[in-house]
Order: sequence, then C-alpha cells, then structure tokens
Amino acid sequence: MTVKTTAIQVNTRGNADMLNVTDQVAKAVMESGMNDGVVTIFTPSSTSGLTTIEYESGCLSDLRRLFDEIIDPERHFAHNARWGDGNGHSHVRAALIGASFTVPFVDKRLTLGTWQQIILIDFDNRSRRRELVVQMLGE
Amino acid sequence: MTVKTTAIQVNTRGNADMLNVTDQVAKAVMESGMNDGVVTIFTPSSTSGLTTIEYESGCLSDLRRLFDEIIDPERHFAHNARWGDGNGHSHVRAALIGASFTVPFVDKRLTLGTWQQIILIDFDNRSRRRELVVQMLGE
Amino acid sequence: MTVKTTAIQVNTRGNADMLNVTDQVAKAVMESGMNDGVVTIFTPSSTSGLTTIEYESGCLSDLRRLFDEIIDPERHFAHNARWGDGNGHSHVRAALIGASFTVPFVDKRLTLGTWQQIILIDFDNRSRRRELVVQMLGE
Repeated sequence: MTVKTTAIQVNTRGNADMLNVTDQVAKAVMESGMNDGVVTIFTPSSTSGLTTIEYESGCLSDLRRLFDEIIDPERHFAHNARWGDGNGHSHVRAALIGASFTVPFVDKRLTLGTWQQIILIDFDNRSRRRELVVQMLGE
Repeated sequence: MTVKTTAIQVNTRGNADMLNVTDQVAKAVMESGMNDGVVTIFTPSSTSGLTTIEYESGCLSDLRRLFDEIIDPERHFAHNARWGDGNGHSHVRAALIGASFTVPFVDKRLTLGTWQQIILIDFDNRSRRRELVVQMLGE
Repeated sequence: MTVKTTAIQVNTRGNADMLNVTDQVAKAVMESGMNDGVVTIFTPSSTSGLTTIEYESGCLSDLRRLFDEIIDPERHFAHNARWGDGNGHSHVRAALIGASFTVPFVDKRLTLGTWQQIILIDFDNRSRRRELVVQMLGE
C-alpha cells in the first residue's frame, strides 16, 4: 500500500464552466503504478466543485439551469454586500455541490460508468486558473 | 494495510426509487477481514446517486418531493431534446446528489449513526439493474 | 501505510448552525504522525452534514437562505406527520448536503484553499452535542 499525490491544472472561463477532467485523472492513476485503490480529487477553492455527469451539452446546460434557478446570481447576497466581489452565488453553489470526489480504481482503471465523466465546475464570476489535487491510495 | 473491492447488485424501479444498501455494505466490510479503514461505495452510472438518510417512508417521500420541485421531470430538458430518452431530469439529480459515498469503519463496524442508512437513489425513468462498487482500504 | 481514527466533539445550536471544524481536523492530522494521505470526516447523524465554504458571516447566511427556500421548515413534511418531532426538513437537508467529507493531506497539511474551511452544519431543530469521526489513512 502506498500513497501518491499529483496535480491537474486547468484554465476555466468561470460562470459555471464545466470541464471534463476524466482523462487527466485516469492518466494520474495509470502513472501511479498502482493496480487497485481509491483516487480522491479535490479542488482547493471555495468557488468551484466536483461531480460526475454525462458530458454532453444538453446535460451540462440542464445542470446550469438548476443553479441559475435555485441560486440566482442576480439576487442580493450578503457576501457581496460585505466584500463587493460579486461572487456570493459562486460560494453557495460550491458549498452545495462539494469540493471533493472519490472513485475506486481496479486494474489501473477508474470504475466509472460508460457515460459518466468527472467534471470540475468553476462557479466563480471570472476566468480562473485552477489546480486540482489528485491523490491515489492503493497497491 | 490492504485494499479489497467487491460489488453489490440491486434491482430498482427507477423514478427516484430509494434502496437501503446498508446491510450489504456492512457485510462487505465484515467479510473483508479488515478491522479499521474506510469503505467507498460508488455507483458507476450518471442517473443514480448515493447518500444517507433515516430510512422511513416519511423522510423518503419528503426527499422525493424536493427533487420533484427543484428538478421537475415535466419541464423541458436540453438532454431530452437532443437524445429523446426522457431522463434529462435524472442526470441533473444524479449530478447534484453525487455518485460516491465514503464512511469509516472501526472494529469491523460502519460508523453510521443509529438512524442513518446508506441509500442508492435510482433517478432513471425506468427499472434498472444496478451494480455498485464497494471498496475497503484498511488493516 | 496505516490508519488512525479519532473524534471531534462540538456543541451546536441546531437550526442550520454552521461550525468551522478545520482547526480540529488539522490537529488530528498533525497528531497522527502521518505525512501524506487522506482524511475522512464523517457525521454519524441523519440531521447534520459536512461541506466546505469561506467561513464568513455573509457566505453562511447566503447558504442558510438557500436551505430555507428550497427546504422550508414551515411546510408539511411526511416525516413530521408520522413521528411528530418537527425536524423533517433537517433530514432532507442533511441527505442533500451529505454526511461525509474527504480531503487529502500532504506534508502533514490539509490541501484546502486559502479561504476554504470545513464546516459541520447541524440541521436539527434543537441544540445538539455532536461527535464527528475523523479517520486518517496514509504514511
């Protein structure tokens, strides 16, 4: 059993930009030399989150609509009133979806479903450079 | 320290069917031979998810109402317009709740609360056979 | 590689009280003697949950508003009708946000972002004493 930690860098456009990071996570697992274990992907940020989805434009826009409806950026946010950075909605969305995602791998392969991809959602209100932590535990 | 991966099979009715998989996860931990560690349960699907809840019919119907209200299956979904399979709402719900659930075990027992059970929610719009990945890391 | 399990005790006021447990988790990691690995924080309860957020009063009240809007405690809940304990909304909120949170640590430090803290949200409708499970796997 061992642990290896690496990183993934991505450039986002913000505003609920959804990036498919599956290939980069799969590559990290492959390069770890481990056969079986768990990989944790973590976004060290309070305005972005991780989940899985079928990565096609319909699903992505349907998910974006949910966020626009239940956490509308145009409303008043106490965070904006205090700090003036206009990304109050980004914080609430990120807290809801979660900063962490965990998936087992077996025989060097992620156990994802056929149509299931890992996405980073950047909820911030501007373009960002993001670095995700990718950590494998296994043997 | 070692890693063991097994599977749980369940039949669901779809349409936010909620299945209590706690006993099957507890059995997998017991049979792993490990005393302490973490178990990751993962649904390799983009139309189902995992969480915990008090498994009684009131809580289950209250949770179902939330999904019906914030992600109403009767609305237009871009996914449906493109693919015609009518499960656009299932994808959005699954992305929101998450495909992965992680819980420590100590002395061969899950550290769940007294009234807390692990559930698979199948959001798809039809009956499905589901296979969950269950992976223990520990010693 | 080894595993260590410890606990964090907190007193909450209930009603979506949000407690910053980051320092206690960081201390558990430091005291584990491990350099690199993953820490799982788990709330053994069906009326509380874990996530990350920038811990400032604006973000906290913005997140509370979301819960009040999409899972309004004043509505009818089937759980309350059956059990009469008035915390039906607490169960739905907890199932939505999730009972588990996982974050890698590297060189004895949590890989959290600068403004990102780990919070316990107690959704119950009264003050509670909560004990969280904190488990480190690493080397």
